[in-house]
Amino acid sequence: MGPIGVFDSGLGGLTVLRALLRRLPAEDFVYFGDTARVPYGTKGARTVREFARQDAAFLQGLGVKMIVVACNTAAAFALETLQAQFPLPVLGVIEPGVSAALARTRGGRIGVIGTSGTIRSGRYQEALAAAVGAPRVVARECPLLVPLAEEGLTNHPLTEMAIAHYLLPLRQAGVDTLILGCTHYPLLKPAISRFMEPETVLVDSAEELAESAARRLGELGLQRPASAAAAPASRLEFWLSDVPWQFAEIGARFLGRPIEAARQVNLDEVEQAGRLVRHGRERA
Amino acid sequence: MGPIGVFDSGLGGLTVLRALLRRLPAEDFVYFGDTARVPYGTKGARTVREFARQDAAFLQGLGVKMIVVACNTAAAFALETLQAQFPLPVLGVIEPGVSAALARTRGGRIGVIGTSGTIRSGRYQEALAAAVGAPRVVARECPLLVPLAEEGLTNHPLTEMAIAHYLLPLRQAGVDTLILGCTHYPLLKPAISRFMEPETVLVDSAEELAESAARRLGELGLQRPASAAAAPASRLEFWLSDVPWQFAEIGARFLGRPIEAARQVNLDEVEQAGRLVRHGRERA
Repeated sequence: MGPIGVFDSGLGGLTVLRALLRRLPAEDFVYFGDTARVPYGTKGARTVREFARQDAAFLQGLGVKMIVVACNTAAAFALETLQAQFPLPVLGVIEPGVSAALARTRGGRIGVIGTSGTIRSGRYQEALAAAVGAPRVVARECPLLVPLAEEGLTNHPLTEMAIAHYLLPLRQAGVDTLILGCTHYPLLKPAISRFMEPETVLVDSAEELAESAARRLGELGLQRPASAAAAPASRLEFWLSDVPWQFAEIGARFLGRPIEAARQVNLDEVEQAGRLVRHGRERA
Repeated sequence: MGPIGVFDSGLGGLTVLRALLRRLPAEDFVYFGDTARVPYGTKGARTVREFARQDAAFLQGLGVKMIVVACNTAAAFALETLQAQFPLPVLGVIEPGVSAALARTRGGRIGVIGTSGTIRSGRYQEALAAAVGAPRVVARECPLLVPLAEEGLTNHPLTEMAIAHYLLPLRQAGVDTLILGCTHYPLLKPAISRFMEPETVLVDSAEELAESAARRLGELGLQRPASAAAAPASRLEFWLSDVPWQFAEIGARFLGRPIEAARQVNLDEVEQAGRLVRHGRERA
């Protein structure tokens, strides 16, 4: 009955944690942001898979009962591997986002935007195409949107221009539903919304993931017991592999409230956790 | 009499290698790009110092005769540490850039732009202020310029707008000399030049560094011997800790010619090299 572990390449996953906290206020959470190696979205599949395995192993070492892969790129490349290697429920952001988009599309013309890694992995496109047919799916990698969101330029003309640059083909293709396939994009929702046709539905995977985590906890009987309401307030713990320059500003912006204290973990320890899993010792 | 080792957080340092190749065509070079952990410019001082030490140790293990720190952020945080820990000449980009700016300024009003880490380290500002006085130095961090250069949007309206966003205070302060304190910025030189006053001198640290590397090789008698002209053509070797998605495009854009073959090194090996140095075994 430990906390729920959430990991991300950096601070973007705090938008997912925010949704989880809203949906599951009684649960304890441990967040790990791999800020020393962020971003994952520009890096190769093998590298991302190895990093994700280490991140999950680090959380497992902290005694979590469930692992949430809050990073779309990590989920795209590593979800199955993690589900096979870890004796814990492991949830990713892609599946919930796809289900929500399919439930909400009216015309079956669905767009998805994400990092280079997420889009080039083809995971969203495959899952969507299986339901609506490949010609009705439009995907686009949008590498500049992450740094723009981190800079806090959420409603700046620069962001408006970058959004127009990336999203014009999706608007022209008449997508009626657009999946925001990166944890940074919810911060850009107003600007994206202004650019797309007014009736376009924006699917924020964080909300959908929180819903599916709640369902999964229920199915497995892993919810924090109701009596715990009388117990100490739920715990929230932050671990980072680096304390980046703009940590306080970016963290508060993504989580929606200040982060009281974050502990720094040396990368050596994260990698060591990964090695233990690789050698199968976690099952001993 | 080994090759010259050049390392960078990623591919940006290829602009420095390009200048070195032009200035020292008879030398052999080994380039290491830490593409698995790129960028360094947003990360904390301790993390960058540790990564730089590992990168240098990895190059040392390949038998280099000199180490060039092609990354401004790594040089800002780690140059003295590396010079103290390694029994090899270690050169950084900051010192040559500062000297060149001081030699070329007419009015002594100097600007410097770089990553968050480089600018927040204060290294450029301190060195410049010692010569011209702090009030005549204007520094600005420009985090979006790296992703814009990597996207290849070197003359795109987005880049023009980002440059105006960052550089307006420098233009208004009337800087007559501007140091491009990041390896990515030489690609944006035409756009930066268009925005600044026509008489503003842009100092590209790569050129200056190549000059100072040539001088240093001469002083130490480490040049590849002239007879080597009859020997096999100079070697050029690339090592990367990750093969990123846009490696071929970005690499060719920064180096100015295609990269024929790059070898991938596992991060484990890079870290292992760092551990050997940390324990002082390299001097045994």
